[in-house]
Amino acid sequence: MNFSEIVGIIAGCLTTTAFLPQLIKILKDKSAKDVSLLMYIIFCSGIILWLIYGILINSFPIILFNSITFILNFLILLTIIKNNLSQKR
Amino acid sequence: MNFSEIVGIIAGCLTTTAFLPQLIKILKDKSAKDVSLLMYIIFCSGIILWLIYGILINSFPIILFNSITFILNFLILLTIIKNNLSQKR
Repeated sequence: MNFSEIVGIIAGCLTTTAFLPQLIKILKDKSAKDVSLLMYIIFCSGIILWLIYGILINSFPIILFNSITFILNFLILLTIIKNNLSQKR
Repeated sequence: MNFSEIVGIIAGCLTTTAFLPQLIKILKDKSAKDVSLLMYIIFCSGIILWLIYGILINSFPIILFNSITFILNFLILLTIIKNNLSQKR
């Protein structure tokens, strides 16, 4: 593994795990009114395309990192919808 | 340009512009208490490493997309800090 690959792997780990604090914060505070729903809709759509791109060019790191990012982002998307619905009640 | 490259470019456009609605929302609502500061600190660090990776492997799309993503994320980071400070006053 060369230097650039190591930098890429650390970069991928950071931009993937970055979403975990946001998910934990929404679950803990039971509030997501300041979090943009539109951001996560666009981001999840983009990640699905990154996954397709990874499959097309047969890149294991792209498939792996984007699968985890998609799961975390989709969970944030669901918690935003859940919180927005319960706040409207 | 082949099919996989087109998919990659659309994916990059989506995951880059996704942050714009979050930035607009914070500026409009003047509130960011539900937005995780830690998420944007980790994400910005990761994007800096993606930029270094792009420079190391000489990839123009990686440098371009991550430069825009960094600017948007850094602006979100600054607006979160600004709003958190003004709410504490």
